Formats: sequence, C-alpha cells, structure tokens
Amino acid sequence: MLIVMQHGATAEQIQRVVEVIKGMGYQARPMPGAQRTAVGLVGNDGRVDESRLAGLGGVKEIIHVTQPYKQVSREWKQESTVVRLPGGLTIGGEEVVVMAGPCSVESEEQILAAARAVREAGAAILRGGAFKPRSSPYSFQGMGLEGLRLLARAREETGLLIVTEAMDPESLDFVAEHADIIQIGARNMQNFPLLKLAGRAGKPVLLKRGIAATITELLLSAEYLLSEGNHDVILCERGIRGFDPSTRNVFDLTAIAVVHELSHLPIIADPSHGTGRRDKVIPMARAAVAAGADGIMVEVHPNPPEALSDGAQSLYPEQFTELMRETRVIAEAIHRRVSEPLPASIGA
Amino acid sequence: MLIVMQHGATAEQIQRVVEVIKGMGYQARPMPGAQRTAVGLVGNDGRVDESRLAGLGGVKEIIHVTQPYKQVSREWKQESTVVRLPGGLTIGGEEVVVMAGPCSVESEEQILAAARAVREAGAAILRGGAFKPRSSPYSFQGMGLEGLRLLARAREETGLLIVTEAMDPESLDFVAEHADIIQIGARNMQNFPLLKLAGRAGKPVLLKRGIAATITELLLSAEYLLSEGNHDVILCERGIRGFDPSTRNVFDLTAIAVVHELSHLPIIADPSHGTGRRDKVIPMARAAVAAGADGIMVEVHPNPPEALSDGAQSLYPEQFTELMRETRVIAEAIHRRVSEPLPASIGA
Amino acid sequence: MLIVMQHGATAEQIQRVVEVIKGMGYQARPMPGAQRTAVGLVGNDGRVDESRLAGLGGVKEIIHVTQPYKQVSREWKQESTVVRLPGGLTIGGEEVVVMAGPCSVESEEQILAAARAVREAGAAILRGGAFKPRSSPYSFQGMGLEGLRLLARAREETGLLIVTEAMDPESLDFVAEHADIIQIGARNMQNFPLLKLAGRAGKPVLLKRGIAATITELLLSAEYLLSEGNHDVILCERGIRGFDPSTRNVFDLTAIAVVHELSHLPIIADPSHGTGRRDKVIPMARAAVAAGADGIMVEVHPNPPEALSDGAQSLYPEQFTELMRETRVIAEAIHRRVSEPLPASIGA
Amino acid sequence: MLIVMQHGATAEQIQRVVEVIKGMGYQARPMPGAQRTAVGLVGNDGRVDESRLAGLGGVKEIIHVTQPYKQVSREWKQESTVVRLPGGLTIGGEEVVVMAGPCSVESEEQILAAARAVREAGAAILRGGAFKPRSSPYSFQGMGLEGLRLLARAREETGLLIVTEAMDPESLDFVAEHADIIQIGARNMQNFPLLKLAGRAGKPVLLKRGIAATITELLLSAEYLLSEGNHDVILCERGIRGFDPSTRNVFDLTAIAVVHELSHLPIIADPSHGTGRRDKVIPMARAAVAAGADGIMVEVHPNPPEALSDGAQSLYPEQFTELMRETRVIAEAIHRRVSEPLPASIGA
Repeated sequence: MLIVMQHGATAEQIQRVVEVIKGMGYQARPMPGAQRTAVGLVGNDGRVDESRLAGLGGVKEIIHVTQPYKQVSREWKQESTVVRLPGGLTIGGEEVVVMAGPCSVESEEQILAAARAVREAGAAILRGGAFKPRSSPYSFQGMGLEGLRLLARAREETGLLIVTEAMDPESLDFVAEHADIIQIGARNMQNFPLLKLAGRAGKPVLLKRGIAATITELLLSAEYLLSEGNHDVILCERGIRGFDPSTRNVFDLTAIAVVHELSHLPIIADPSHGTGRRDKVIPMARAAVAAGADGIMVEVHPNPPEALSDGAQSLYPEQFTELMRETRVIAEAIHRRVSEPLPASIGA
Repeated sequence: MLIVMQHGATAEQIQRVVEVIKGMGYQARPMPGAQRTAVGLVGNDGRVDESRLAGLGGVKEIIHVTQPYKQVSREWKQESTVVRLPGGLTIGGEEVVVMAGPCSVESEEQILAAARAVREAGAAILRGGAFKPRSSPYSFQGMGLEGLRLLARAREETGLLIVTEAMDPESLDFVAEHADIIQIGARNMQNFPLLKLAGRAGKPVLLKRGIAATITELLLSAEYLLSEGNHDVILCERGIRGFDPSTRNVFDLTAIAVVHELSHLPIIADPSHGTGRRDKVIPMARAAVAAGADGIMVEVHPNPPEALSDGAQSLYPEQFTELMRETRVIAEAIHRRVSEPLPASIGA
Repeated sequence: MLIVMQHGATAEQIQRVVEVIKGMGYQARPMPGAQRTAVGLVGNDGRVDESRLAGLGGVKEIIHVTQPYKQVSREWKQESTVVRLPGGLTIGGEEVVVMAGPCSVESEEQILAAARAVREAGAAILRGGAFKPRSSPYSFQGMGLEGLRLLARAREETGLLIVTEAMDPESLDFVAEHADIIQIGARNMQNFPLLKLAGRAGKPVLLKRGIAATITELLLSAEYLLSEGNHDVILCERGIRGFDPSTRNVFDLTAIAVVHELSHLPIIADPSHGTGRRDKVIPMARAAVAAGADGIMVEVHPNPPEALSDGAQSLYPEQFTELMRETRVIAEAIHRRVSEPLPASIGA
Repeated sequence: MLIVMQHGATAEQIQRVVEVIKGMGYQARPMPGAQRTAVGLVGNDGRVDESRLAGLGGVKEIIHVTQPYKQVSREWKQESTVVRLPGGLTIGGEEVVVMAGPCSVESEEQILAAARAVREAGAAILRGGAFKPRSSPYSFQGMGLEGLRLLARAREETGLLIVTEAMDPESLDFVAEHADIIQIGARNMQNFPLLKLAGRAGKPVLLKRGIAATITELLLSAEYLLSEGNHDVILCERGIRGFDPSTRNVFDLTAIAVVHELSHLPIIADPSHGTGRRDKVIPMARAAVAAGADGIMVEVHPNPPEALSDGAQSLYPEQFTELMRETRVIAEAIHRRVSEPLPASIGA
C-alpha cells in the first residue's frame, strides 16, 4: 500500500504518516519521488484498515499496489518513463534507439572502426565491453579501464553515446565516470549489492534480464535501483535459457509487451544474445521493433571472424546497415521512428 | 546419404541401387518424390564409400544430408515449398496468410458470426476446432462431426477455407473429407501413427510444434508426413513451455528463422496460444510477420467472455480488424503482402 | 464438488441429484466408482449453495475437490491405490516392484536372454517395446505383433509379467490381449482418444509423464483413464526436458513425493530415460527408491552396444544385478521391500 | 593441454615452458597446484604439436584436457578431493556431512535454539544467513555483521562449524574472518569478481549451482576459485528452474552423479531450496544421499511459521531428527556414514 503525499507535504507530515504506520504494527518505507513523495506500507499479509491514514495531514491518496514491486509498477506511475540522455537523446518515448558495437573493446583501431561503421549506418549509442564477465577464467576478460578510455575516445570522434557493463564496485565507479549508461549484465541481475551501488551512481542504468529470470524478478531488481533513488532505468530482454540447442537462448519478445503492461520503464531487446547466431539477428531485430521494443542493442564487429568474443553472433557492418534500413520501415509501420545519432560535437 | 536418380530412371535401376546399398551392409529407403526419386542410405555411422553407387545406371547425383531428417531439409530441396490450396491461395510464397476464428466451433450462430467477422477484416482461412484435445476429461470436448458440418457451411457462405484439428484415425477421416487443411495439434506432434495416416490423407497438413519439441524433432515429425508422400506441409510455432507464469507459453519466434534455414517448408505462427493473453496477441502477431512468418493463426471470437474454451486469449472482432491493418503494413515493410480472402463463390 | 451417494443409493436417487444440479444451472457428471458412486458438479466458478443437495435421498456426503482432477485426487480417495496384477503381485503397497528389460524386442533370442537375466537378478516384470514411437521415420519401429508374441513366450518361460507400450487403437487391442500392463508412453500422455480407449481396455495402465507435463497435467491425463472406469493406473516419472545437454532429461524425483501427496495412485520411476546415460542409472534408481517410488523401470539389454535403440542407457546384466542388490538395501532402509518375481508356472 | 611439471621443477624450467608456448603462438597459464605444478596451454583451436614441449627440462607429462574447465576436471586430478575443516571434519571422503540451520540469523535466541536443536539431532555444520540476497529490496536483508557474531557464538557453545553466505567484497571479508566455510549463493555463481576474491580468501568455499546453470558452467565457476589458488571447493545442487509451479525448483539429483564423473570436487545437495516445500525435504534428502551426495544442507528453524524468510521450506526440529535417522540408514546402505558433530570444545 502506498500513501501518496500532496505535492507540498512537509517533512513533519511525512514523519507522522511513518509513525502511524509503525503504530499499526507494519513497516513504513518513505519513497521520495520526482512526481510525488509516498510512504510505502510493508509487512501486511492482507487487508489494512486505511481509515487512520487517509485522514492524516498532507495525505493525497492511498494506492493499493498488488505487485511485489512498487515504484516500477504502472500502478505507482501511469505515464511511461522517458529516460533523457546527453544531447537530448531519449529512451522510452516515441523514438526507437539503436545501440550497436562490438562485444568487447579490443583495441583503439577496432573500436574506432566499429564506432564509425555503426554511426554511419545510423546507430545513436555505442556498445562495447571493457569489463567482461566470462564463463571461463581463461577467456579474454576485457581491457578494463583502458577499454573505457577508448570508448570515450570513440564518443569524442563520433558523437555516439556510450553504454558499457560494470561488474563490481570498482568497475562501477569507472563506468559511471566514463560512460553515459551503466549496463548491469544478465549474470548480475540479482547481484543486489551491485544494484544498490548502481542506484546511487548518478547515471542511467541498462538492466539486462537474467537468463532464467521471471518478469517479476526483473522488475524487483529494477526496484532496487529506483528504491535507491535512480529512476533512469532501461530494461533489456536478451534471451532466456531454453531446451533447444538450435539457438543460444530463447528470445522472449513477449516480455516486451508484458513489461509495458506492468511497468512504466522502457525496455529494449538484444537479438544478438537473444539468438546467438548472426543470421538470426536481423529478422529478430525487426520482430523486436514490431513487438514494441523501445530500442535494440546489436553486436557489430568490423571483422567478426577475428572477434575475441561473440564473433558468431556479431554482424558485419554491411549487414547492420541493411538492418537499420529495415528497422526504420518497421518503426514507421507502428508510428515510431528510429533515433538519429547526435552530431559529433554534442557527444563530445 | 541420398542417391538421387535421373528423371527417367527405371524401376530396375532404382532396384539395383537398393541392392548395392544392401550389399554394402546398409539399409536402403527409396523415396519417390515430386521433383525427383531418390534412395536414402541409412545405417551408416560415418563416411560411406560412394564410388560404387555413383557409377550405377540412372544415378544423377549423390547428396550428403547431414541432418537426421532428409526430405524436409534444404539440403534435399533448395527452393521453398509453396503449398497450393483451393482457389489459388498459397502458403510459403510471397504472401502472408491469415487464419482466424474461434478456438472451438460452438454453434451455427457462433461460427457464422466469427466467419463473417474475420472475412470482413481480411482473413483468408477460418480456424475452429470440432475435435478438441482438452487437458481435463470434464472440459468441453468439441462438437465433433456436427462442428465440421458447420465449418463447411461457413466456408460456403464466406469463401473462407477451413483448417481444423484431427486427433485420431476416425476424426482424421472426417477432417480430411470436410476441411481444406488438416491440423495436427501440438499434443499430437509425436503421435507417429496419426502422422502416418495424415501423410496419406490427400490434404495439406498444418503441423504444430509440440510444447517442448526441439526444431529437429519438429522437422522429424514433418518427415513422417513427407515420407508417406504428403509434401503439402505447413509448420506452426505456437509457444513452448517456459518457467515464467506471466505468459501461458514462451512464443519462440526465432524458430521461424531457424526453420527457414533448415527446411524448405513454410512456417506460420500462432500468437494466441503462443502468449495466451489477448492483449499480447496483437504485438506478437506483428512481430511474427516481421520475423518472416509465412502466415499467422489467430483466435477470434464474436464474444470472447462467453467462449467455451480459450476465451482469455481470443480477440474481439474489432481488435482483429486493427491487427489486420497493422499486419498489412508490416508485411509490406519486408516486401510481402497479406493474402486476400477468396470470393465466396470459389470457396464454395 | 462431489456429491457422494450412499452405498445402496438407487438409480432414481442418483438421477434426482443430477436433475437438481442441472436445475441450479451447473453440469452434472455421475461417476460410478468401485468404492462409491458420486456425482460431480462441474461448471461452478465459485461457491455453490449445497443445502439443496445435502438433503436429497441417498446422499451420503458432499466433498469439495479443489483440484481440476477429481477421481485421482486424495480428496476423493484417502487410501493409496494398490494395483493388483496376476499371481498376486501388487504395485502401490508396501512392496517396491522392479520392471526391467530391453528398450525394444529385437528377436526371440534377445528377449529370452534379457528375460532370463532380469528374472535371475530379481525383477518381477519384463519391459520391452513391440510398437516403438521413434522421432525419425527411418529408425527401427519395433517388431509389432510378433514382438508381443515373443514377450508372451518370455512370460511363459520365466514367470515375469509383461508391460509394453501401445500407440494407437490397433496396437492397444493387441497389447491389451497379450500384456499384463498397457504402457502409454510419454509422447502420448495427452493423446486423449488413446487414453479413453485404454480406460476401457480392461487391463492396468502404466501412464508415463510427458516430457514437459506438469503434475497437474499428468493427473488430468490419469483422470481420463479413471473416468472411463479403469482404476488400475500406475504413474511413471521418466525425466522432463531441461536446458543442460549433460543428461538426456532432468529426472524429477520430487514428482514422486508430489504425486503421493496429491493422488492415491502409485508412481514408479524410470531412471533409464530419466538420465539417458548408463552410468547414471544405478545412483538414480537408488535415489528413486529412497524418494519413495513404488517401483522402478530399468532398461537392461543382454548386449547394449548391439541394441537397436537406447543402447547408451541400457544396463549390462551384471550392472543390473548389482543395482538390485543396492535397491533391496535402500528399500529396507525405509521399511519397504522389493517384490519377488512370481514362479514361472504362475506367470504362464 | 596441460604441461605437467615434475615435482622438483625449477622456476626457470617453468618459465622456459611458458616461453616455448608463447613462441608457438599460444597463451600460457602457469597453474601451481598442491599435487603438481602445470602450465596450461590455451588458445588452440585444434591439435597442437607437443613434441617441442615434451622434451623440455622438468616436464613430466602432457595431459589433453578435453573440457573447457581444467583444474576442476577428473582428467587433471584423478583422486577425489577431500576438503578438510577444523577439528578434522572432512567433506568428500567416506563421510556424509549434514549442514543445518535457519535460512537467516534472526536473533541470538533463535540461532542458539536452532544450533542446539540441529546439534542434538546430529548435524555437524550450522547454516544461517547473515547477508541475505533477497529478490525484493523491501524484504528482510539479514542482520549483517551482527549475524556473523551470533553464528560465532553458536559455534562456541555447540561445536558446530559455520557456513554462511558472502555477497560482495565487504561481506566476503567479514565471512572469511568469522565462518568456517564461505558460501557463494546461486545468484552469484557467475559473479566472477566475487569468485576471484573468494579464491584468495583462505577459507573453503561452498559454491551453489545457479538456478539455470549447466554443469559445465558450474564447473567453470569453480575453476575461477581453483585458478586463484583455492582448492577447497565444495559444490552444491540446490534446484534448477522448471516449468511446473507444484515445486519451487526442480531438484536435479542427477547432477551429483554427473559432477562426480567430470570433477574431483565434492558435491552436496540442498533439498530445502531444491524443493521449496517442507514435506518434500525429507524424501528428497534421502534421495540425495542415495544418489551419492557428499552431504546435505537443510533448513531447520525452531519455529518455522515465525521465520523471517523461507518458513515454508524449513523443517521443524523434530522432523529434522527423523530425517537424520533415515539419512544414517541410507548412508550405510551405500557404505558411507554420516559425520558426527565435533565436541563443543573443538569447534570453539
């Protein structure tokens, strides 16, 4: 249950609501928000007598939130969240944003070539891993801080914004400093200490769905971010574990429509990890946009066979150009349009 | 391994190939086909010395089929299969076909109302179950033969072709007599005796993917149909079992691209069973077409809340009209178009 | 809701209950049972006013069945079902029954060798497929009726009872005539027409869980058998589809405890299909017995590398002998014992 | 490929092997081990010419490791690892160890009551979470450092060793200081930075299988620990995600046999999380021991209905006592025995 306070409610009025809730035997969780401050009432198993709360000073209304997640729910906030990025780029509005680039930053030459290619084709955001979570300790683990610096250089040259993954407190600090969007990867979707830190990092967060996470779990993980005060959260469907080895994962596009129903947060889709196979990326990127995704994230490498990671699912630049063309047509078919990249001068 | 015979190869030449194969210690499976007759060589664990076979009379070429399925594979037949239906309707070519109608035939009034509504919106084929596989013995089991007669009446009036499910030898005979396409449902995808009968029924077959079937298993089941001589086979993705209760199934749209790569058979998608929720059907139908599906199958009921089965996933007629509009735009975006329904006089 | 009639309730009294139910706007389903006749009330969404029914003549009590399945539930019948087989062998009581034999009957020599070996080690029931559901139409499809005759010959010689699979109406007739237990395989768990026929076949039925079936679906399929009058039903866990290729299936032993809670029917486990790998069969057979299975079904072949099907998961006879030894100790640890095979003269 | 060095190989000899590997165009990874030092050769796609390496000074033998994991594999180390704990307790040998206690430490009174009860019944190790990974930010997050201190107090009084979870670098330091075994939970199985830290923490690690992890992924995560020098690793099966809501997870007991085949590391099983339902814990704990688990981990709470977390799957103390009795009999049936708890004076 949420006790929503009036716009000008005083700290004393909020405190009074908290005390009454405690006096009723429940826990109170004040949730200051951009739109409105509210106090969550937690710990009830069933119906709560709300009459004592409704009459308190500064209380505007009482909302019954039926889901385990609160601030991420549509019940809590009707209008869709539009995440605003530097240069005026937005995610969650009318535009469909395209994030593209290699799995990993491998060298200055490679990341600049990739950035130029995806910028040329029309992507607005550059992806590329500097800190890589790899199943094997013997696999390439990413270039680390040096990789972040190369991403920043690519942004300077091309105007592309940067999204890259953080894996632990140390890399989170670095990523928050250098990137425009902090990615929390699928393997860390339930790394709650990391989520709490990301919720306080002051940059938008791209939260990928875990490989076996339900939508409820995904939204609860997003709730960790919002409950720490970060409302600029973008979700990402990237494939769930399935039983058929013919694809790397099962790309669950229905998740997009389900998230849009349950939450006000934007959600994008990653057909590269979602399918794991280059020739499946294009049709499934089209399908993601048709399904209503607020963006797509695609792996593109200047030379896929030489990639240090995920080569089999990386597009060739010319395939990506074709994908961008098709994506624009599909977006228009549902009255949206693909975001234009920023001029280089703004990104820098 | 397939030993492909020349167009005019004689029965004696084919017999000779069979004998040589047996003499080599393998099994031989002659596969007469519309395009070409071939003899499959089965029972080899590794490399076979093909020199003895290549030189025999009437042998055109030798194809190494690496998949466990043979006649359904792209290796066996490069060009995509186009299934031709009465009145010139086709599935698997440039057109995207829409099949729509209620889960079950419930009454003359209901099926005619549904048929008129989906015809008006632009569907070309009417779906509707007369024989219903139901998890519970106490659920409505369908109208049976009377349901088939009502479907035929709807075809007469509207020109819509008919697809409906067969469950056992008896219903298969009835369906083959009254319908234009015989549907084999997901629960019967590995009912091999039924597949063999359907392979000899003389009507096109719509084979739905089982709820936990791999693509390989789906194609092997289709192979049962082709190996009995029926080459008019349409596959259908309809959702696979997943772990998240937020949807009924996981709608695996990547399967469309995978099937198109591995097989020459057309594949459609059923977003109604794929998602199980009415408000998810429209975005996922769009996504299916964007992913390259050769058609969609959608549940539409004149009055969903009164449906005897699957009401929660059936569209209202006006929702279906909107879906048809969106589907047409998406199809055009990828250079296809939605099939027009036949004139009533032809269907009849 | 079940309206349970008194033992001597008349046909008129039952008919009166049916009429009152219909008059209340619901459907009535009389369910004559061995223990008691009852009338199921179906079609209610919520609470039914039972006062009108409780007072009718011949009504003993009213049971609220909360599950979608009725006659298979513990609510409907508290005491565990003990299936009685020829010669006094039972399944579902204190004894743990062992069914063993090859995947397929391949020849007289093979099936007799297998029968002697498993009888010698202590199995009570011989398994062996005559009609084989195979994913590929080009795989060995079983010996058919001739296979059944060989099984009967093995029974004559060894006293082992016979369990073998039926796949369609025709093979069901044959199996019902020759075997002691009719097996319905995992792929046919939701072949409802076949279940209805098996429910009228007059022999006990072993119903295997489908590869992606929930326990509720398994019990609903069993309900088809009971609702046709066959109460001698044995369930079987045989592995469900999973994401890890390191085993063929995920062997879900918890299903045994779940079924024992929800239903009065016995349940056995098949570690051969459950794991798909010979060296995993022994530990998992032990685990199944420890988990409370009422029996196990194990593939044993006189010469596994030569088997026409499932060789990789078939035990060598000496491995099976060791397994029997371990199984006996585990059974005793939980106060059960492994059934002794019948003398040859009784089986015959 | 592993180049195994002789026992007395010098640093120079090892360095020479590294250089030759690099000169051949591959990467070299020296792996100092307790039994032997080896140099892994990584980066080869196929066959490597080993003749140049075999002749180098100090090289004992060359092992071809076919798995992606190296040091955890049976190929690398034949004999099973026995993890030695304070007081002489071992995991991975003949004994079956029982870890028991509440999901979370909630208060001094609660944890002491739990410790006494499980000690009395015969458990050797006390479990209890101080740092809790919870799906919702509004759920009880554990007592933190204070919880660790209470666990230490329980150890002092009862002699039980302590296993408890670490979630991030900070809690890892605390846990390594206070506990006897550091638990890495299922949600952090692929938190690679945390694994690296745990690999250097100087205490045995209990690594739980992720909810959708393959056995290969589990072993690769364990490889992170060994590659940092920590060879005292215990794996744990705790249930994987499934499609059937009748249990919380699918308890994959076959994983025990698969791990024992592929790796020398011990593996225990957690039937509490594996099933999620109190009445299923006892049969599945028995099954785990019968399947060959090197131990079990069971949630026991002095008063389950009052538990702040996981109450529905926590045993009552008297149920746990009965479970211990049954576990002992099953263990003996396969020639093992349940570890005795240490005297209180040793644990302290």
